[in-house]
Amino acid sequence: MTAVTDQPVSPAVRRSAELEQRIALDPSGFRVLSGDRPTGALHLGHYFGTLRNRVRLQDLGVDVFVLIADYQVLTDRDVAERLSEHVEGLLLDYLAIGIDPARSTVFNHSAVPALNQLLLPFLSLVSVAELGRNPTVKDEIAHSRQAAVSGLMYTYPAHQAADILFCKGNLVPVGQDQLPHLEVTRTVARRFNERYGEVFPEPDALLSAAPLLLGTDGTKMSKSRHNSVALGASADETARLIKGATTDADRHITYDPETRPGVSSLVLLAALCLDRDPHAVAEEIGDGGAAVLKRTVTDAVNATMAPIRARRAEYARDMGQVRDILRAGNERANAVAEATLDEVREAMGMFR
Amino acid sequence: MTAVTDQPVSPAVRRSAELEQRIALDPSGFRVLSGDRPTGALHLGHYFGTLRNRVRLQDLGVDVFVLIADYQVLTDRDVAERLSEHVEGLLLDYLAIGIDPARSTVFNHSAVPALNQLLLPFLSLVSVAELGRNPTVKDEIAHSRQAAVSGLMYTYPAHQAADILFCKGNLVPVGQDQLPHLEVTRTVARRFNERYGEVFPEPDALLSAAPLLLGTDGTKMSKSRHNSVALGASADETARLIKGATTDADRHITYDPETRPGVSSLVLLAALCLDRDPHAVAEEIGDGGAAVLKRTVTDAVNATMAPIRARRAEYARDMGQVRDILRAGNERANAVAEATLDEVREAMGMFR
Repeated sequence: MTAVTDQPVSPAVRRSAELEQRIALDPSGFRVLSGDRPTGALHLGHYFGTLRNRVRLQDLGVDVFVLIADYQVLTDRDVAERLSEHVEGLLLDYLAIGIDPARSTVFNHSAVPALNQLLLPFLSLVSVAELGRNPTVKDEIAHSRQAAVSGLMYTYPAHQAADILFCKGNLVPVGQDQLPHLEVTRTVARRFNERYGEVFPEPDALLSAAPLLLGTDGTKMSKSRHNSVALGASADETARLIKGATTDADRHITYDPETRPGVSSLVLLAALCLDRDPHAVAEEIGDGGAAVLKRTVTDAVNATMAPIRARRAEYARDMGQVRDILRAGNERANAVAEATLDEVREAMGMFR
Repeated sequence: MTAVTDQPVSPAVRRSAELEQRIALDPSGFRVLSGDRPTGALHLGHYFGTLRNRVRLQDLGVDVFVLIADYQVLTDRDVAERLSEHVEGLLLDYLAIGIDPARSTVFNHSAVPALNQLLLPFLSLVSVAELGRNPTVKDEIAHSRQAAVSGLMYTYPAHQAADILFCKGNLVPVGQDQLPHLEVTRTVARRFNERYGEVFPEPDALLSAAPLLLGTDGTKMSKSRHNSVALGASADETARLIKGATTDADRHITYDPETRPGVSSLVLLAALCLDRDPHAVAEEIGDGGAAVLKRTVTDAVNATMAPIRARRAEYARDMGQVRDILRAGNERANAVAEATLDEVREAMGMFR
């Protein structure tokens, strides 16, 4: 990956580099949990940020679980709109990018009761104060569309612990901002094991250096802001969106995210697609200006996305089969969740 | 029932009287949810306070669900001790007092994942502020054995909504102090129906005039204070406990709960067993003093409990059968919960 971020090398980054080495040596020792909320179409930001990393791990031989977090849509809004449509769109995106249902497990939250039941013992292991001071929850509350903070938002980190631990996931690809969430999962696993005996792994964060891609309007790329190229967009839609992207008055193209965020984000996008260094891409365009830049980006995106879009269209021709893939994933997730729940019941001395 | 309490006639009390009339006319229109935490042996306070009321409703023809709330043990303590033993003890008590597994459904929380899953959509319907200002939770937090308030304690009213609504219970026998909890359940049902379409009843409270029985030490009767006669106690243990009960220096026995709590609680216990007015019981004992009072109470309790204890001993001879009764109840509860959860998923537009 050529994306460059300016983070200092934190212990979490060092730990992630170590983990990558261990994955390369023994991928079968790892189980990954990763997922998305079905709130809209996945876009290039998701692709370069997390999606292609899941496929990479799958292809290395890691056991990958991909969660469609349908209940979590309700953490920051009252009603989940067009939910089935978004779930099916996510599923198509996963299949299109190369998630292989024969090797990886795609499932949706609401279809796996035994996973959700884990929320109860896990809530007994964290205090209200611990839930309340979670910085990610605080931030999400600040951006919520709801008038009041719902109980679902507040308990979200404990539910996420259930997501990760139901399949004994020991590796969670996250961005820097999600580290506090994972800390709650680690705390839950540790406390459960101390209190009831060893059942859960303490999962590690696999930090990914997420590229700083902005939306075409220069703000944060977002499913709901119509400023991003969806994975399922056509080549024409892609060209149109990139043509309308915000650039600046300086004709000479450079890669300088600090002072030229719009131009640099486009350069970075081309570089990611071409698997090249963004400075080299910018230099090559040089005085070609925004027009050449946008043509370069459009061509690069469309070339990279072409096989993905072809696969997406192929799958979309038989939605019955696609839905069966999710049903099969849910069946597997249920079997895994029920086995874990049974261990949990036994460890806690519940009647069985 | 002869128990007298001094509560003014509140709207909730009037409503309960109306409900009793409707139950008498059409018991099949009602489904009751009631239950206990498996933290110790049930005692006479439970029997006269709630248990015999469940049997009464069952025998009137109401569909009764009895919940053994095993996860809720952890709301106010870190570890559930001797859990299986307490669950089996509760089950024996239910069977002994006349809960009929052919008509009523006894089940335990941790065995019914689809019920527990309802916690998630329900948490999306209540705000953190609403959970926090629940007076019953506030009170329970004040009496908790834990250093910090757990997430499980905080979300308890939403979980209780799942207990009641999973079986579409429309009637919940409660004491005055539990009314705020039921209000959360009613709010959850109303909001769910408004948002997603009519699925749940808004359950009514059936207020029971709980008799003011004190423990033998004059304090609140409690499973953990060893100041109560367990349903499963022997006649000798009963005699011993009542013999040691706190009375006072006035030889003349009267029924005056305000000024003579210890003596009056014993009088009331005898009256409840004999189905007589406590004033009449007190008058009959008169100058017989504490000795006659205690003999009267012991004889009355042992006579009332004799058939219950015989039935308990009978069931206890075959614990395999008793456990099978709970397994069958869990199977029925799961079928009911899964049907409701399916309706909930459909109403919310979840992938199925």
